[in-house]
Amino acid sequence: MIKVGIVGCTGYAGQELMRLLTMHPECDVEIITSRTYKNMNFNQVYGNYTNITTKQIVDDEIEELAKKVDVIFLALPHGIASNKITNKILEHTKVIDLGADFRLKNLEEYEDWYGMTHGSPKLLDEAVYGLCELKRDKIKNASLIANPGCYTTCSILSLVPLIKNNIVDKNSIIIDAKSGVTGAGRALNLATHYTECNESIKAYKIASHRHTPEIEQELSNVADNSVTISFTPHLVPMNRGILITAYGNLTKICTYKDIKNIYEQFYKNEKFIRLLPEGVFPETKWVKSSNYCDINFQIDERTNRIIVIAAIDNLIKGAAGQAVQNMNILFNIDESTGIEMIPSFPI
Amino acid sequence: MIKVGIVGCTGYAGQELMRLLTMHPECDVEIITSRTYKNMNFNQVYGNYTNITTKQIVDDEIEELAKKVDVIFLALPHGIASNKITNKILEHTKVIDLGADFRLKNLEEYEDWYGMTHGSPKLLDEAVYGLCELKRDKIKNASLIANPGCYTTCSILSLVPLIKNNIVDKNSIIIDAKSGVTGAGRALNLATHYTECNESIKAYKIASHRHTPEIEQELSNVADNSVTISFTPHLVPMNRGILITAYGNLTKICTYKDIKNIYEQFYKNEKFIRLLPEGVFPETKWVKSSNYCDINFQIDERTNRIIVIAAIDNLIKGAAGQAVQNMNILFNIDESTGIEMIPSFPI
Amino acid sequence: MIKVGIVGCTGYAGQELMRLLTMHPECDVEIITSRTYKNMNFNQVYGNYTNITTKQIVDDEIEELAKKVDVIFLALPHGIASNKITNKILEHTKVIDLGADFRLKNLEEYEDWYGMTHGSPKLLDEAVYGLCELKRDKIKNASLIANPGCYTTCSILSLVPLIKNNIVDKNSIIIDAKSGVTGAGRALNLATHYTECNESIKAYKIASHRHTPEIEQELSNVADNSVTISFTPHLVPMNRGILITAYGNLTKICTYKDIKNIYEQFYKNEKFIRLLPEGVFPETKWVKSSNYCDINFQIDERTNRIIVIAAIDNLIKGAAGQAVQNMNILFNIDESTGIEMIPSFPI
Amino acid sequence: MIKVGIVGCTGYAGQELMRLLTMHPECDVEIITSRTYKNMNFNQVYGNYTNITTKQIVDDEIEELAKKVDVIFLALPHGIASNKITNKILEHTKVIDLGADFRLKNLEEYEDWYGMTHGSPKLLDEAVYGLCELKRDKIKNASLIANPGCYTTCSILSLVPLIKNNIVDKNSIIIDAKSGVTGAGRALNLATHYTECNESIKAYKIASHRHTPEIEQELSNVADNSVTISFTPHLVPMNRGILITAYGNLTKICTYKDIKNIYEQFYKNEKFIRLLPEGVFPETKWVKSSNYCDINFQIDERTNRIIVIAAIDNLIKGAAGQAVQNMNILFNIDESTGIEMIPSFPI
Repeated sequence: MIKVGIVGCTGYAGQELMRLLTMHPECDVEIITSRTYKNMNFNQVYGNYTNITTKQIVDDEIEELAKKVDVIFLALPHGIASNKITNKILEHTKVIDLGADFRLKNLEEYEDWYGMTHGSPKLLDEAVYGLCELKRDKIKNASLIANPGCYTTCSILSLVPLIKNNIVDKNSIIIDAKSGVTGAGRALNLATHYTECNESIKAYKIASHRHTPEIEQELSNVADNSVTISFTPHLVPMNRGILITAYGNLTKICTYKDIKNIYEQFYKNEKFIRLLPEGVFPETKWVKSSNYCDINFQIDERTNRIIVIAAIDNLIKGAAGQAVQNMNILFNIDESTGIEMIPSFPI
Repeated sequence: MIKVGIVGCTGYAGQELMRLLTMHPECDVEIITSRTYKNMNFNQVYGNYTNITTKQIVDDEIEELAKKVDVIFLALPHGIASNKITNKILEHTKVIDLGADFRLKNLEEYEDWYGMTHGSPKLLDEAVYGLCELKRDKIKNASLIANPGCYTTCSILSLVPLIKNNIVDKNSIIIDAKSGVTGAGRALNLATHYTECNESIKAYKIASHRHTPEIEQELSNVADNSVTISFTPHLVPMNRGILITAYGNLTKICTYKDIKNIYEQFYKNEKFIRLLPEGVFPETKWVKSSNYCDINFQIDERTNRIIVIAAIDNLIKGAAGQAVQNMNILFNIDESTGIEMIPSFPI
Repeated sequence: MIKVGIVGCTGYAGQELMRLLTMHPECDVEIITSRTYKNMNFNQVYGNYTNITTKQIVDDEIEELAKKVDVIFLALPHGIASNKITNKILEHTKVIDLGADFRLKNLEEYEDWYGMTHGSPKLLDEAVYGLCELKRDKIKNASLIANPGCYTTCSILSLVPLIKNNIVDKNSIIIDAKSGVTGAGRALNLATHYTECNESIKAYKIASHRHTPEIEQELSNVADNSVTISFTPHLVPMNRGILITAYGNLTKICTYKDIKNIYEQFYKNEKFIRLLPEGVFPETKWVKSSNYCDINFQIDERTNRIIVIAAIDNLIKGAAGQAVQNMNILFNIDESTGIEMIPSFPI
Repeated sequence: MIKVGIVGCTGYAGQELMRLLTMHPECDVEIITSRTYKNMNFNQVYGNYTNITTKQIVDDEIEELAKKVDVIFLALPHGIASNKITNKILEHTKVIDLGADFRLKNLEEYEDWYGMTHGSPKLLDEAVYGLCELKRDKIKNASLIANPGCYTTCSILSLVPLIKNNIVDKNSIIIDAKSGVTGAGRALNLATHYTECNESIKAYKIASHRHTPEIEQELSNVADNSVTISFTPHLVPMNRGILITAYGNLTKICTYKDIKNIYEQFYKNEKFIRLLPEGVFPETKWVKSSNYCDINFQIDERTNRIIVIAAIDNLIKGAAGQAVQNMNILFNIDESTGIEMIPSFPI
């Protein structure tokens, strides 16, 4: 059994990790930590765990923790992990970081977008960007995995086949993204007070959201060329789910079938990528509570644009589920172990 | 492997059955039927099944079906099952009926409350009321199980220990129940059109809901005496979940602890009943996507009443989950197989 | 024109007051105050006021304010008003307090239920309980009006005709109340964080909510006898609206018509009370954005109980609308001025 | 008083018209019609009208109606109005059509996008496209007004100043639109069944929505040149509101201030257009229940794009409110009469 520790177990991603890992047949959750809720039982923080666990939350002591477990999941606000993770820790244990600290390879870019000094720039090279479908081989041998962001997972997965095959103009890409409110976390904020976000939609962090450079980094890698995008996230009054609507100018005239073939080739062995039938488009409800990413697209012949739609559950494929998928790859067990749930509906 | 057929697979309870049984480690879903959607693939009706099943829906032919499977789940509107189920069918297969036809033992009561003639009154005696925690022994040997209603499951489970121990005045019980909109099913209706029920709450079928005699029947059995209740259901703008708030006059002065002991004794071996700590009350969010029933109560000293609160997921413990629990009992496998999911939150 | 001041203008009740009074044809909003948001423009706190007002929020200085306006509305957390309002203030201006400080006539009861010392017990006698339909004559000459609570307004209005006419057993009354989340105010709290209360329902403050003694006080007055009730509030995932479901044992056998006559007599001149046709029950959606209280009832013949259902918009008839109605009475203008809006639907 | 008739009064736009016109100080609602609900009282169809109106719904007889009223509002499914409106009717009365039949000037385009033959192509020239802020002068003298679509109103208002001033590349415009569910009307449909659209977001009619040619027509007029856009609508789980996020390539490098000046000039006398302060973006909650259109934009310097955000209440500025505004212009009364409501929040 893989021994697991969860640092920052009480945020929404942390809780989802706890749920998936508790039900995972090949691992044991040994230690869970939180600075805010230390010494409480997990089931006092999350009532769904009544009679399911009596595990006590302890304070964050990552160095100590590293000696006791095979893998640590970090679910912390950005800026903390880079100050806590050291080579010494990585000698003892694997680390899967759900935060942003090790995602951007370019230090300057990190410091620009996040407005802070990076705590361990030397680890940036060592960290593997854990988008499982694209980086499986590197992940296998990694010590430190940067689990991708929610918007980025959905955006990259839906655009990579187009970029790779040079089908869209690299500088024409616009991603209009919509997220449920869990994406904003559990910290109290007027913007996520029930009566402030219920029954309303808004855009936020327009042209300035931190997932932008992450998407650009990965698309640029695939394009072998710099890709610059416009990215606009929106807050939607629902708990879970991300839908992205991406627009790009086609570099030539293509049929739906041409492009569908490309997607099918690209994702032919990918269990968690579901290419929908022509004319059927992703809706967040069909992926909720699962690790799937649903993708389809439409060609807008009048403008020669492609419009790609994709959906994920932001807390699963966009966070905890993909983190477990990374763990499965790291420990060489079946990649879908513990994350094969059929999406739950209507929920 | 238990061979399973689902008749009426495309309603919400049918779909949840499909999901639970597909993931169940000890059974195979052999045949799924629907008159409305016959010849379609299940994943065309429910997009969450893309790439998960390619099973085709066939027309309802229960007699034929009975020869091919070990157990048939019926998820049909009331009034149909009683005209379809025969002794001959029951010779070939077990039947778990999620509808109301075999729940009431008193034929007259059925015909009164449901306003229709019962199609097979002779089977009423044979049918076992499948409230697992109370009828486990009878269920084991049953051929035909009447899976309880959603409101009734939650109401009975929360009140039985009080009735059994003569703690509340049997004629003082008032149940004020609240349900999410899945309880109203998938059939189109102005009352469940999004913009008609979103952001509003209402009571309905006041003093006339058909789950009333079902609750009374089971409480009366336990009381060995006639119990008459007031029952008021409400429609709440959320997808899933039932909360019941039940009121009863205490027959004597009791402390919280006295009564808690009674509940603990009554449910000491019940995995799916969770008695919450003093002062912590059930909320539907903590049981969603699970088979648990959460229960707690408060004594209102000023009025010498007890107020019992209980919550379930109406589609799981209130329908498909309990049906699977019944199957597990029938086939003598671990009762919690396939329904052990930790409640999912926030969903 | 009536000169108006609003103290505590930035809570939800304060904002609704601002909206109603700004559109009111016979008053001018002169001064608005808030400790938290002082020096900001109101439209920076509430974006709906862009281009509508440029009024600046000032600090709370009630004594000064009293000299400048004809009436002050207080929309403050309980416990503050009783320490701020003095006879001197009341010499200069009328005060309509939307908080709880002057609602309970019995000092001990206040201090018991609110757990604090009352700041000006001498004013309790002077204060008039501003439930307009019942206290119109006293309100006319009042200096200090205690605007009723939201649950209480709905509860009292729906039960008073029964109590007054001795139709229900005074000690049998149970009120099961449901409220939208605005009832919990704008202050941040995990319980009203979007993803914590969306898609879930719960009971809270069971047998201990502070509106209980307020309802009892007014029903007891009418009964000329002590009335003790059970009151259970629930939090419903919607922005606005209160629904109450009240249960009482009938003192004799009555028909629907008998009791309907009593209600019709009692409310025959009341514009804001709407008695629905037999078989049609209140839903919060039909009163939203209005000052109406919808009422109907059902007789449960099996148990000889009456079940009364009533609905209001908690921020209007349950707070700001009734406060304006009180102002209209106080200043002897048409009682429905400025609060005649047709309920808005679907909203 | 202006005498008014509403044809198709029981859809959501019809109901909102009824509400606004009933409260409008300078008009009387004389006749209301519906084929489906004829002979019922309006308050039996919409419970918010209890005690407010006893008006009976009559069958659609537009010719007769034309003789009795000064203006007819048509709120019908597309394809009907063009077969009902004749020159004879227009001799007797003004007509404001909330449907699509008279919006597109190009007959072929209409027949292409709507897939039907137009019933009165000769009236297309006579009809005035009733986007009040742009067509005020023509509206004044019109007999037949084509009230714009909801998405189109919001899209055109937010983009026209840019197009007019040649600031964006006319072929680069992408509009990603989000609408509440009232936009889909009151007709029953699985897609708008509560539990099918609650807690989910989806795109629909991708690159094929019928508001596309309407937006293009008006933008092209202003541009004096053909404008082709990509338009993607999304269904958001909320009752009301439209948010559009529009993207365009800047034709030159501009500052926020440069462009803000252009908007301010363009809309300097427009009461219902609210240009928000720099950095503050429209949210649907701030315009709900009002006739306002909120607009702001951000320059994405990295890509030299402009991102424009705008919000309206789809049933008011996007339907009934703008129709009333058109009536006010037609009858030469203050344009904001009856539609000056402050947006209601939180609702």
